Amino acid sequence: MERVFNADTTKYLGKTVKLQGWAQTIRSHGKIIFIDLRDISGLSQIVVTPQNEKAYSQAQKIRPEWVICLEGTVKERPQGMINPKLETGKVEIEAEKIEILSEAKTLPFSIEEDGYEIGEEKRLKYRYLDLRRGRLRKNLIARQRVTAFMREFLQKEGFIEIETPLLTKSTPEGARDFLVPSRLYPGKFYALPQSPQQYKQLLMVAGIERYFQIARALRDEDTRGDRQAEHTQLDIEMSFVEQNDVMSLLENLISEMMKKLYPNKKTIVPWPIINYQDSIKKYGTDKPDIRENKNDPDEIAFAWIVNFPSFELDKQTGEIQPVHHMFVQPQKESVSFLDKEPLKMVSTQYDWVCNGYELASGSIRITDPVLQMKVFKLLGMDESDAKGKFGHLLEAFEYGVPPHGGIAPGIDRLMMILQNEPNIREVIAFPKTGDSRDPMMDTPSLVTEEQLKELSIKISKKKKGKS
Amino acid sequence: MERVFNADTTKYLGKTVKLQGWAQTIRSHGKIIFIDLRDISGLSQIVVTPQNEKAYSQAQKIRPEWVICLEGTVKERPQGMINPKLETGKVEIEAEKIEILSEAKTLPFSIEEDGYEIGEEKRLKYRYLDLRRGRLRKNLIARQRVTAFMREFLQKEGFIEIETPLLTKSTPEGARDFLVPSRLYPGKFYALPQSPQQYKQLLMVAGIERYFQIARALRDEDTRGDRQAEHTQLDIEMSFVEQNDVMSLLENLISEMMKKLYPNKKTIVPWPIINYQDSIKKYGTDKPDIRENKNDPDEIAFAWIVNFPSFELDKQTGEIQPVHHMFVQPQKESVSFLDKEPLKMVSTQYDWVCNGYELASGSIRITDPVLQMKVFKLLGMDESDAKGKFGHLLEAFEYGVPPHGGIAPGIDRLMMILQNEPNIREVIAFPKTGDSRDPMMDTPSLVTEEQLKELSIKISKKKKGKS
Repeated sequence: MERVFNADTTKYLGKTVKLQGWAQTIRSHGKIIFIDLRDISGLSQIVVTPQNEKAYSQAQKIRPEWVICLEGTVKERPQGMINPKLETGKVEIEAEKIEILSEAKTLPFSIEEDGYEIGEEKRLKYRYLDLRRGRLRKNLIARQRVTAFMREFLQKEGFIEIETPLLTKSTPEGARDFLVPSRLYPGKFYALPQSPQQYKQLLMVAGIERYFQIARALRDEDTRGDRQAEHTQLDIEMSFVEQNDVMSLLENLISEMMKKLYPNKKTIVPWPIINYQDSIKKYGTDKPDIRENKNDPDEIAFAWIVNFPSFELDKQTGEIQPVHHMFVQPQKESVSFLDKEPLKMVSTQYDWVCNGYELASGSIRITDPVLQMKVFKLLGMDESDAKGKFGHLLEAFEYGVPPHGGIAPGIDRLMMILQNEPNIREVIAFPKTGDSRDPMMDTPSLVTEEQLKELSIKISKKKKGKS
Repeated sequence: MERVFNADTTKYLGKTVKLQGWAQTIRSHGKIIFIDLRDISGLSQIVVTPQNEKAYSQAQKIRPEWVICLEGTVKERPQGMINPKLETGKVEIEAEKIEILSEAKTLPFSIEEDGYEIGEEKRLKYRYLDLRRGRLRKNLIARQRVTAFMREFLQKEGFIEIETPLLTKSTPEGARDFLVPSRLYPGKFYALPQSPQQYKQLLMVAGIERYFQIARALRDEDTRGDRQAEHTQLDIEMSFVEQNDVMSLLENLISEMMKKLYPNKKTIVPWPIINYQDSIKKYGTDKPDIRENKNDPDEIAFAWIVNFPSFELDKQTGEIQPVHHMFVQPQKESVSFLDKEPLKMVSTQYDWVCNGYELASGSIRITDPVLQMKVFKLLGMDESDAKGKFGHLLEAFEYGVPPHGGIAPGIDRLMMILQNEPNIREVIAFPKTGDSRDPMMDTPSLVTEEQLKELSIKISKKKKGKS
């Protein structure tokens, strides 16, 4: 017999069906046993009466979270027993056969509530149980719907999704690169990408014109509630465009997505465009929260911040550094400040912000190799240094480069906001703890001497660190 | 004026359009200059006559691969000048304004042919130019169409795409794990995933039931023409299924995809199912090429291989090892051989093969923690060893585990076959060389002493290796 999902049982009234899933709760009322059977589609109520002897004796053994397979007849529930909160609340299944597929120990925590109050360590150690929670399942399904919508929208707009490498090169901002020792080339390393920035610019040189990728980006920084060492971004790059083209594209994408997937959320379209300086003056930040009623969980206030300075001074070191990154095109009127007053330069950067969070940074990119080299020098690289690190990009720009720009919204943070979650770990299937561990897999972990030898590396004397 | 793509010019007959792209070829016939303008959509022919003085003087400067922006009128080509090979072959654009956006040096190789004869080193060093080749662009677009089809099909079937971590744990088959030193935990390491195998099984324990992911898998092995250190797989796992369910799902997905995206390819449906032993006897391999006419580039012969042995002896060491992996469920009648004659066991493995290549291995998984522990022991682990490495999985199976199985077709190899390419590097945007280098980025590379210190590792004395 074909298996039927719980959510579909209402279509089989009067018929015999086969169901499979987890016994979420078991209750006895007099001689009758009621089981709430859970599968990926939802719950259904199973009724087992002593008339079905074999099924009944099986049902008496069943404990919460056992996995069972059963056959039974779909019946209307008696008047007064209807559960209006449940999609399948008008029917129940009278079990005729029950097979126990897997027993279960008592779970370390309840999965019927939201689970916010349970310690993170415990939730992540038993993440495979934590994910049985309705809330987390909803978050994962919502996340898939959002990324599926993004893909569909961009494909219709002629964008090509292209995978870029994970094993790439350590770059100068590389202080926060994850490194991967090479076995074949002792003493040399790959780096995991902090973003596909250079690859997507090279794809523009290649003539792809409209690229996107739902891409993993990795950055070894001290994590916070809304950051993880690895995160996912909708990486977008376009050729023959100006600031407004990229901004419109993203605004259209998100606005259509909100209409389709979050029709109850209140957003304002078109999104306000706020000058960086005005934002700082009025809100004291470049990630303003412009909601009217900050207690309304359905208010989502998207906005653009523009006219950022190109460069700023690092508060600790006093050194000049880019506000976004070193490939950002300055605004036309601004280029002449580069030699003498670089802090006066205004860039083509546009940030997408929402409810006090930055969701994306984007910009038009430098395509003039002479200007790009000047920026590298301003940031403290000498010519041979810059060529060693970015020679391929500078050279690429000499073979016919189109004007191009892009943006890269963070999917984790967007989903956190859309799902009203307090941090991004609630919208990631297998997140790490705040301090970058996975208590379930016990990661990171020691490896064998042999593995290290194979990679030609040794552990150096322990610096202070966590253990 | 809105920019028009080359492929759309035929819709603008008699109108003025703005085009942007690369000057692929420039020819003079008498006083008239012809430019083949290339953009992502294709080519169009630009005509510049001395009557348009400014445009003409610009056009005289233009060399191959310069990036230009132009405005002109779409006209029908004179009879006899029509190019039936080109989609836009019936029209040409008489240029009125031409702007040069970027100049280009002479390319290191021609991009107008297929480019197979050019050395790999050179092609990969200038990959951003190599990708301008029509053949490679078609491959990337075909790849996106295939993965988009897979996603759409699986989403309709109720599958949820879920991202699993890249920073995970080194496992015992870990000899080929890429390791990532942890900065926060000196002396400890993450490992990049050789596959999301354990995560997808844990998602089944979590009750997700139907999971997929177009996932990156990384394995530090000596590479060959059809392998890369990182590859992409369509990772699938399902609950409450048997071998046939997974096999039917994939066969339906691929058959519908072939009908839609490769209607000219000849395939046989349903796919033949061949016993492992028969395949070895008849073809001398478990990856048989069962095409009738091996010279027909449009013949694609898919087949299933089943009834694999569970274990085999390693030819070099003589040690017992799994034919697929250590989580494969043996066939029911076979379990009793485990204690005394494990080499007689037959597993639930199913391999998808095509034209002499293995495209995927799949199986139903062990869900009984006692049986799983026996297999770990058979493979030489003692109990505490096994618990240290796979404790989370063994423990997960004690909280209610559904029967489950899956498969993971390799996307790179599938695309190689579908696009009639000689190796997978032709269907990957930025592949590595056969010996795992990227000549464009110069990867792998040296890193600074500071970076190593930050990670608490040192380079040990160089073992013999490439440099």
